[in-house]
Amino acid sequence: MDIQKTRQKEFDVVSIGNSIVDILIYVDEDYLSKQSLNKGSMTLIDDSKANKLYSENIIEEETSGGSAANTSAGISQLGGIAGFIGRVKNDQAGKTFTKEITSIGVAFNTPPIEIGPSTAQCLIFITPDAQRTMCTSLGASVYLNPKDIDISMVTQTKILYLEGYLWDSDEAKKAFTSAAKKCRTAKGEIALSLSDSFCIKRHRDSFIKLIDEYVDIVFSNEEEIKSIAQTSSVEKAIKFISKKCKILVVTMGEKGSTIIHGDKIIKIESYKFGRTIDTTGAGDIYASGFLYGYTTGESLETCGRIGSICAGHIVTKLGPRSNISLTDLVKKNLH
Amino acid sequence: MDIQKTRQKEFDVVSIGNSIVDILIYVDEDYLSKQSLNKGSMTLIDDSKANKLYSENIIEEETSGGSAANTSAGISQLGGIAGFIGRVKNDQAGKTFTKEITSIGVAFNTPPIEIGPSTAQCLIFITPDAQRTMCTSLGASVYLNPKDIDISMVTQTKILYLEGYLWDSDEAKKAFTSAAKKCRTAKGEIALSLSDSFCIKRHRDSFIKLIDEYVDIVFSNEEEIKSIAQTSSVEKAIKFISKKCKILVVTMGEKGSTIIHGDKIIKIESYKFGRTIDTTGAGDIYASGFLYGYTTGESLETCGRIGSICAGHIVTKLGPRSNISLTDLVKKNLH
Repeated sequence: MDIQKTRQKEFDVVSIGNSIVDILIYVDEDYLSKQSLNKGSMTLIDDSKANKLYSENIIEEETSGGSAANTSAGISQLGGIAGFIGRVKNDQAGKTFTKEITSIGVAFNTPPIEIGPSTAQCLIFITPDAQRTMCTSLGASVYLNPKDIDISMVTQTKILYLEGYLWDSDEAKKAFTSAAKKCRTAKGEIALSLSDSFCIKRHRDSFIKLIDEYVDIVFSNEEEIKSIAQTSSVEKAIKFISKKCKILVVTMGEKGSTIIHGDKIIKIESYKFGRTIDTTGAGDIYASGFLYGYTTGESLETCGRIGSICAGHIVTKLGPRSNISLTDLVKKNLH
Repeated sequence: MDIQKTRQKEFDVVSIGNSIVDILIYVDEDYLSKQSLNKGSMTLIDDSKANKLYSENIIEEETSGGSAANTSAGISQLGGIAGFIGRVKNDQAGKTFTKEITSIGVAFNTPPIEIGPSTAQCLIFITPDAQRTMCTSLGASVYLNPKDIDISMVTQTKILYLEGYLWDSDEAKKAFTSAAKKCRTAKGEIALSLSDSFCIKRHRDSFIKLIDEYVDIVFSNEEEIKSIAQTSSVEKAIKFISKKCKILVVTMGEKGSTIIHGDKIIKIESYKFGRTIDTTGAGDIYASGFLYGYTTGESLETCGRIGSICAGHIVTKLGPRSNISLTDLVKKNLH
């Protein structure tokens, strides 16, 4: 085999999701009790509460986050061409999000809003025992609407990747389906991350309709797929959803992952590169690895293994961003 | 990796094309001159002429043929689930076609016509020097129309494979695009074989429109791609067409094949399993191998190699059908 370069579609993966700035803050146990926060939980907070918490703490690190944005970042770090569509406000956090994600090479040009709620923030309080307690303000990100969809991006990508988290907003939902239609007409494929079992419960029927009509590749974990199929059996849930899409990928943490494609069930083992410190972003970067392989014409088994390698690495470090060369990591561990 | 069985789409590949019965007849040189046939040529003849030639000769072998039908047969022989849509008449040749293709395991249930021209026949006169002189009567096969399209087949296949040869008939053209639309809506992918450089010249613009709007995978040889791109340079032709589809496959006989996918150009070598006797069906079975790999989640390189192995085998024997186990052949030569 001899590989040369040419170019067809402009992007490998364009994703649509919440534009969230992850804010890492080290605190002691007392701080959590003073704020009435249950350690290890995720609490939705409003804009003003987020701003208050932000201003009264010392910020350890700020990084662009959000599930789909993480996936686009991973694609770019693997050497693919990635784009992201999501709403920020023209504030400090919005600027941080934009600067960080574009510095990785992800194309991001959704115009920021000038008025309304602040850019979404996820304040992550890390206690000395390495546990994470999160307060999320979704802010501007849920105000994504069909007008925010950059047509040239969704028609010029091999894969359009949608994040289920946005499904709570009717306008964002319209933006999703409008983008999916345009992408499909331009012969792109649609991938969906189910994102969250609670979100699925609230919108089960419309999620199933979305998958049935538009989605080629579904990413899910065991909880999410059981939730959407309304069963306590992962096997039954897989049977139910795999009929509705081309490829179903179920990630199962240390148990690895399963890829269902037509009459094939491919089991992929997990990779372990050290002690698990923080599983945030593991599913997101698995999707990066899988889709990177998929858009470069690799076999589904190789796609799954690239995803698994990336996820195995990201859980050994804090936060959803890799600080090493993912390309080298994959090259070293794939064969 | 551990593979288990389940089932999603009913078919791997459903193809639409001319339903032709290939009729092999051994003749001497004198016979050709008596019939005023130029050795090595392909002559289109009418129905009554075909019937006359058929009745006055000793038939060596009859087999279902036609480009797309050959590809479906190859898919089935490789272990995939294949279907075929094409028009025959309820006559002896139509019965032969139906019996032979279904005996290989290809689902074929387009209702035969009761009146009108006979089932398409390709009389192949083989002279002692192993050359082939063909007389083709397209008969009933060009009367395919949108009503003949089995909706449950085109919506229940991973790949819908179209043969360019049918493009001469307006009704067949409508049947094509109607099937392609339905397949795409059901999230299937569309593949097209360009088939013939003369056919392309007659319908260049509408072929390009078809590719632009519907086709994901294009199969072509060097002559065909130069013809559709109106250039004498294969490289320029590849640049022109590869922008319009997901995957472009250019077969080049003994020089191997080239797969163009996004920014990748993958070169596949040809396989040689003996002396080349007859290249009929080589392109068709290359497509079988490629699509079999594609629908089972193999890498594009592996897809090309499976196609190349099948083509390398078929040219060492007479006719478009393999008489050995393609599965074993591929298994032995792939790694």
